[in-house]
This record gives sequence, structure tokens and C-alpha cells, in this order.
Amino acid sequence: MEAVNLGEKFAKFSDRWSPKIIGRLNDLHIKAVKVKGEFVWHSHADTDELFFVTKGMLVIKLRDQDVSVAAGEFFVVPKGVDHKPVAEDECELLLIEPAGTVNTGNAGGELTATSEPWI
Amino acid sequence: MEAVNLGEKFAKFSDRWSPKIIGRLNDLHIKAVKVKGEFVWHSHADTDELFFVTKGMLVIKLRDQDVSVAAGEFFVVPKGVDHKPVAEDECELLLIEPAGTVNTGNAGGELTATSEPWI
Repeated sequence: MEAVNLGEKFAKFSDRWSPKIIGRLNDLHIKAVKVKGEFVWHSHADTDELFFVTKGMLVIKLRDQDVSVAAGEFFVVPKGVDHKPVAEDECELLLIEPAGTVNTGNAGGELTATSEPWI
Repeated sequence: MEAVNLGEKFAKFSDRWSPKIIGRLNDLHIKAVKVKGEFVWHSHADTDELFFVTKGMLVIKLRDQDVSVAAGEFFVVPKGVDHKPVAEDECELLLIEPAGTVNTGNAGGELTATSEPWI
């Protein structure tokens, strides 16, 4: 067993909005994802979702405010709350959420990750 | 609602081996803790435990190996596995584990955190 190095994991891929699984904690997955541009509005009915930014800046739009999340910061979107992640420049982040959580939640659409591989 | 800044949270305390709660994800707490020296051997019968190092170097001793966890790395100790965290110099890290998880697990003793405050 050995530690998971975030830099090594992020160096393994370049596609965006496509989470990769890099760890497991009980029934949760820890995922690495690169993003740039605008995601879709969506929510997750059954779970909170943690966004931890490791590089760049993410804005998580909520219906009534924008939450800026810089490198070294995290934000937990409560379950059921509509949100839309946006990044002006490329941003690297970790997601922590239950295994099987679909990235587009209730919205579906072309940005839905049909498989989230372990890397 | 706003993001949680790790640097701001770690600046709020200096005591060691005493986790502070800085976030919640479903039934889990995200905790900030500073450590230096040797903790006690212990295990958690009911849960995995995630250690994410943000500053310094942590060594997680297992019965059959040592796992080095540097800043920017994480390691998940599986439930039921004996472990002993050790840091030669001061180390800052996040713990993610179910709310109510006792820091000394099955071992108890004087390093047991009797309360883990939100900061």
C-alpha cells in the first residue's frame, strides 16, 4: 500500500469534465477531474458533493449566489441544491462523493460521464 | 455559503493531535489537525480513515510496512487495520471520516480528543 500523489494522477490525463477515480473511503470515491468552461445546471438528490480545488479557480454557481473556490479551498454542495460549476481557465480539483454518483446528476446530457475509470 | 480555506483554518490553532472540524459531507466530517511526534497504535473497527497531508510529511506505520504521505498526497487506512501516525517535524493534514470517529480508535488513552470543535 502506498500514498496517492495528486500531481502524478493529474499528469495522467488531459480530458476535461471526465472524473477519474483515484481512491475510495468506505462507500465514497475520491475523483480527480480537470475542468474549463461551463458545466450544466444539475443537482444530486441523495448526496452532498465535495469540491476541493488543487489548481486554478472554480466558480460554483448556485441559484442565488456564486461561490468562488480557489486552490487550497473546498466547498460542499448540499444534496438537492442546484449548482453549475464554471472555470474561466483550466482548473484541477478533487470530487468526493458516493461511488456511483453521476456527474450530471438529474440533468443528463452530453457531458454525462458514462464511465469513470480508476487511474 | 462560502468556500473553506485551509490556510485560514490551520492559522486558527496550534495544538497538536487535536482535530478540528472544518466541514461536513453527508455523515462524514472533514477535520484539520496538526501533528508532531508519535501517536498511538490504534484501529477503527467500523470505518476507513482518509489522511490528506497539506504540509510536511506524515509516516503512517502499519504492522507490516511504513507508508510515507507527503504534502499533496493522501492515504486511506482501511477499517480494522492497525496504524500509528508519526511525524518527525510538524505536519498539517486533513482527516475525513464519519462524524463521531474517535481519534484513538480502539486504543483510548491520554491522546484521545474528548471534543472536536468546529472552527
